Amino acid sequence: METKMDSFFNPSSVAVVGASPRKGGAQIIQNLLYGYQGAIYPVNPRYEEIQGLPCFPSINEIPHAVDLVIIFIPAHHVPPVLEGCAQKGIKSVMIESAGFSEVGSTGRSLQHRCLEIANASGIRIWGPNCMGLVDVRRRHFFTFMNPRVYQDGLIGSSTSLVVQSGMLSAAFLTDLMGQRAVGVGKVCSIGNKADVDECDLLRYLLEDRDTEVIAFYLESMRKGRLFAEMADGAQKPIVILKGGRSQAGAKAALSHTSSLAGNSRLAESVLATVGVTLAEDFHQMVDIARTLASTPETQSIVRTAILTFSGGAGIVSCDLMARHGLHVAQLSDKTLKALEGVFPPWMPVANPVDLYPAMEIHGRVATFDRAFAIIAEDPQVDALLIHYVAGLEDEILNLRRLKQIADAKGKTVLFWLLGSNKDTRRFRKEAQAHGITVHGEISRAVECLAAAARFHTLESRPKITLDGPKGSARSTIREVGSLPTNVPVWDEFDSKRLLAGQGVPVVEEALVHSLSEAEEAAIQLKFPVVLKGLMPGQIHKTEKRLVRLGIENRHELVDAFRTIRHRMEGQGRILMQHHMKTDYELIAGFLHDDQFGPCLMFGFGGILAELDPDVVFVLAPVDPSTALGMIKGVRGKRLLEGFRGIAPLEEKRMTDILVRLSDLGVAYPQIAQIDVNPLGVSDGKPFALDATVILKT
Amino acid sequence: METKMDSFFNPSSVAVVGASPRKGGAQIIQNLLYGYQGAIYPVNPRYEEIQGLPCFPSINEIPHAVDLVIIFIPAHHVPPVLEGCAQKGIKSVMIESAGFSEVGSTGRSLQHRCLEIANASGIRIWGPNCMGLVDVRRRHFFTFMNPRVYQDGLIGSSTSLVVQSGMLSAAFLTDLMGQRAVGVGKVCSIGNKADVDECDLLRYLLEDRDTEVIAFYLESMRKGRLFAEMADGAQKPIVILKGGRSQAGAKAALSHTSSLAGNSRLAESVLATVGVTLAEDFHQMVDIARTLASTPETQSIVRTAILTFSGGAGIVSCDLMARHGLHVAQLSDKTLKALEGVFPPWMPVANPVDLYPAMEIHGRVATFDRAFAIIAEDPQVDALLIHYVAGLEDEILNLRRLKQIADAKGKTVLFWLLGSNKDTRRFRKEAQAHGITVHGEISRAVECLAAAARFHTLESRPKITLDGPKGSARSTIREVGSLPTNVPVWDEFDSKRLLAGQGVPVVEEALVHSLSEAEEAAIQLKFPVVLKGLMPGQIHKTEKRLVRLGIENRHELVDAFRTIRHRMEGQGRILMQHHMKTDYELIAGFLHDDQFGPCLMFGFGGILAELDPDVVFVLAPVDPSTALGMIKGVRGKRLLEGFRGIAPLEEKRMTDILVRLSDLGVAYPQIAQIDVNPLGVSDGKPFALDATVILKT
Repeated sequence: METKMDSFFNPSSVAVVGASPRKGGAQIIQNLLYGYQGAIYPVNPRYEEIQGLPCFPSINEIPHAVDLVIIFIPAHHVPPVLEGCAQKGIKSVMIESAGFSEVGSTGRSLQHRCLEIANASGIRIWGPNCMGLVDVRRRHFFTFMNPRVYQDGLIGSSTSLVVQSGMLSAAFLTDLMGQRAVGVGKVCSIGNKADVDECDLLRYLLEDRDTEVIAFYLESMRKGRLFAEMADGAQKPIVILKGGRSQAGAKAALSHTSSLAGNSRLAESVLATVGVTLAEDFHQMVDIARTLASTPETQSIVRTAILTFSGGAGIVSCDLMARHGLHVAQLSDKTLKALEGVFPPWMPVANPVDLYPAMEIHGRVATFDRAFAIIAEDPQVDALLIHYVAGLEDEILNLRRLKQIADAKGKTVLFWLLGSNKDTRRFRKEAQAHGITVHGEISRAVECLAAAARFHTLESRPKITLDGPKGSARSTIREVGSLPTNVPVWDEFDSKRLLAGQGVPVVEEALVHSLSEAEEAAIQLKFPVVLKGLMPGQIHKTEKRLVRLGIENRHELVDAFRTIRHRMEGQGRILMQHHMKTDYELIAGFLHDDQFGPCLMFGFGGILAELDPDVVFVLAPVDPSTALGMIKGVRGKRLLEGFRGIAPLEEKRMTDILVRLSDLGVAYPQIAQIDVNPLGVSDGKPFALDATVILKT
Repeated sequence: METKMDSFFNPSSVAVVGASPRKGGAQIIQNLLYGYQGAIYPVNPRYEEIQGLPCFPSINEIPHAVDLVIIFIPAHHVPPVLEGCAQKGIKSVMIESAGFSEVGSTGRSLQHRCLEIANASGIRIWGPNCMGLVDVRRRHFFTFMNPRVYQDGLIGSSTSLVVQSGMLSAAFLTDLMGQRAVGVGKVCSIGNKADVDECDLLRYLLEDRDTEVIAFYLESMRKGRLFAEMADGAQKPIVILKGGRSQAGAKAALSHTSSLAGNSRLAESVLATVGVTLAEDFHQMVDIARTLASTPETQSIVRTAILTFSGGAGIVSCDLMARHGLHVAQLSDKTLKALEGVFPPWMPVANPVDLYPAMEIHGRVATFDRAFAIIAEDPQVDALLIHYVAGLEDEILNLRRLKQIADAKGKTVLFWLLGSNKDTRRFRKEAQAHGITVHGEISRAVECLAAAARFHTLESRPKITLDGPKGSARSTIREVGSLPTNVPVWDEFDSKRLLAGQGVPVVEEALVHSLSEAEEAAIQLKFPVVLKGLMPGQIHKTEKRLVRLGIENRHELVDAFRTIRHRMEGQGRILMQHHMKTDYELIAGFLHDDQFGPCLMFGFGGILAELDPDVVFVLAPVDPSTALGMIKGVRGKRLLEGFRGIAPLEEKRMTDILVRLSDLGVAYPQIAQIDVNPLGVSDGKPFALDATVILKT
């Protein structure tokens, strides 16, 4: 399969069906002639020659082998052309025409027909409805995009892009290389993804020697689990901008876990836990990607030194770093002493290192070079964020040497650059050539540094290891007795019995069928108690006023029991629990996601958390170290570490619950979802206070 | 005073002490000659002529009236020059030299000496340690900054900047006008702010006809209250980037209110409530400011139409808008019908409006013009976010007409622009000339739109109205009996007695001096009860294990009473309360801030809120509408509106508590802080569960 993919990127010859002397059909040929070194065969029955190249009436009349066919003709003409390709034994076809599944049912049938032909003949289809492929370093423009895209010159880099958007790739490329002087590597516009999709490209680009980092803009992710599993083992940084987060979820959420999974939260959380960096806008995605490409491998980059010409910019950098959880490095005594030799005597040396006063004495570049060399030596510094004004003097910073020093010392270097249009462009291009990242705003530089810090932290994390074959449960599973399989949504009591059977701690409770049983149970369970009316198939007990908390005495119990029984109108059953005092509430859950398969969730429960969810999703099954990673992965983890007199969460117990929950879900394929909500924590110990098991229907 | 300030901005003549043929001294003269039309008098005893201008040995030997003196000589020579200025009756002096309070004690004395001379003679000092003033529209460069700043050409606008940072103003200006083609108006670098400060400049620029919006970069804000009061009445948008948010607060915080006030939270919250927009980085500050300058006055801009050439960019715009709480407009039926006439038949019309398919039919500009005219008519659309690629074809968008249409319909228009370097610069300059804001990233465009939406919402808010003279309490104050003034930190019981005396609802409680009193009180207050050991001067009872919650019966009471009494070692007193069931916990507080004077705080209490504070500060005293604004101003306000079966907060009761708390603090100047924490809410009703009054010492 990889060989076939290589025909898209590095074909020995290209035929263009729909080549013409005008518009897009002409631009494809013009773009091919710009840099592609192999044979080019225009195909169009109406012309004998196009741009000096002999033109062929059909694919089959080309008297040579053809490696890649680019099709750019009206959609309804595509299937017969594909059949021609099949006859000629072509294996790679890029359909750049629009008019397929994106335009409704007729287009969908056309696309389906194309796929049938391709599958029958072993053709791989790229597209349709896409801008094709650009490889800036090889000067391959397999696309009908306007040749203006390279009018400001090409800037290559090791950052490759995969974008599920056509127009954007052309305009965006023009903007990156033109307006911003930012380089790119391969740009893959994959359109409708009828066949070749993000997983194919991820696999290919992970192996591609010219690519150091891969950025994706995706609106859909049909094989989420495969993508996540590949990303999990990937050696290269991956950045994803996922479009459509704000779209309302299609299906009504039965459980809390599945409602929390909506709006891309599950996808983003799963991807983040396997080391993918998430972006939220196009330029930011590229800025993060190129920063990740320029940071040394397997390096911690939390402690940053700031070299600045402005006290104010230093202060704002510190503020932004604090916001992103990065540390302003505490410079070593040796560094401080050495810097004192550069600074004027009145000036206290500190980080941020304000070079301006010393520049007044020694000149701009000399000061910078000395300070940089000193700070790059400091073992307490991981990264250097340099504020610089391009072209202020004629002296030019030696960026090559700077990068050499940084690499030798294993430091990350990035610039915040100000200056005139011409000066900054020249500086940016030179920096790019030396693998140094330049940013136009402090906030963006810091944001990218934070992404790099997160990436390198995750790189060193233990990978998900599976004991058995994928999808099978682990060894914690205990034999379960008879399960009620006649109802799709289990009530709280049955759900917790299943969990307790697997060793998940649950609150003490008892079913009470009469008032006298209730009175007896209350003595057993001890006041205060809780009464809950469990109705068949009903999850939202509180909203139905079927829960009475904190029943203090017999009198209150009688009232509560009667009220709830009355409201239940003869259905369901009544459950009594001891009213546990909890310090806070967590939530855990299991579900099968359409894209990502079995997944496990952990996070904060309770009302405040519902306003602003703080949960983590990972692929199930999980091992204890992944479960521990989930506990460490919530925003509010400080609370779990012991806070203001509250006992720290017992991590062993908590990971154990998560592993058992995941194993249970994976072991019983008939289980669709499990909700443990709330998972109350009392004195550091988690207990399932309520739970729901939902079977597949 | 305004007249004096005008001499800085529009002087009839300027003398430059420290003019020279080289370096900064030469650049000041060169900059003045660039555009300033008044008389220029170089002053330097070593030269007879500088750049063709006659040079004077001293200020006093200039035979003409001098309106403004710019001083750029070593710091220790400045005081005698100032004395010369005083003798000549000069009223406005801009000291651009460094070497004053920023370099330690010698510099501080020098600066103090300068101020003494100035105060004695009525001179206003701008600086020292600053880059002076630039007025791009008037071409006034009263500064030693490198003339390269205008090498890419000047781009004027109505956005004025005040920056407490020297180097940054020059480099930043070069970057704005050069690299970004962004215009600016007046740029005031105010350095050490020995005399002229942000309040002077706010007052001046609010009156300045050329300024429509004012952006500040400030590291300190000495007259915070004055600034906030001016901002509150301001007709022009104000944007502030406050440096130093991450610096550790200097003073240890006694109360929770004052610990929440730290790290600029109070300053930022107070400023935000009076309509100031907060920024977090330099370019972002300018981008927000110029967007605010370009939006029509007193307009709601929540509902946005997105005109795009890329489905993907439209989706990402929607995602970003959702994140910022902006609404993607629901287009009216009339608009949808009209757009159907522009779109190809297969295409469903929706917002985002993807113009690309129609552009394929009608051409780029024709499609755009028709769609824009249709959408600008839609009464359900407040703002149009337009995605555009500069220079893709030779046709040029008529931006003048576009702005005329938008203005006529009262719509906000802003662009997200892609394209080559040359094309985008040309587009940006033209857009700027017509008052249209262009952004380089979708996220920035949306962020600015959100800032504008917030600004216009706040503009229509009720202003803080004071019944009496400022600083005096309102009519709610009731006579208070004898107060314990012998201790600076009151215990919980005394504190709540004071609050209860002012009509603030407090939890039912009683002091218990013996076990038998405790047993009696428990019957009165009803189990479950809470016991608290109150130690003199001790605020953190829980950490000292002096609190026992949820005592259910006599047996537990005996144990709790004995344990707490034992831990108190004969000091303090014991308080018993009924253990109220609360739905959630709030916090309210009063304090005197050094910069902002008496302030009131409201927000969420409890543990999760401590991890991520959600509080609002405003200037005290407050009226009920401001108090209501505080309740509506917390991030978690959805919880207060009734959420998941929890009763909505009774707003009348809550505003009443806030008004009384503020009045109490303002009425008794000896009160430094009042902490009401937690303010428990049960069935929508807030009660003070704990409180602390701290007197000034």
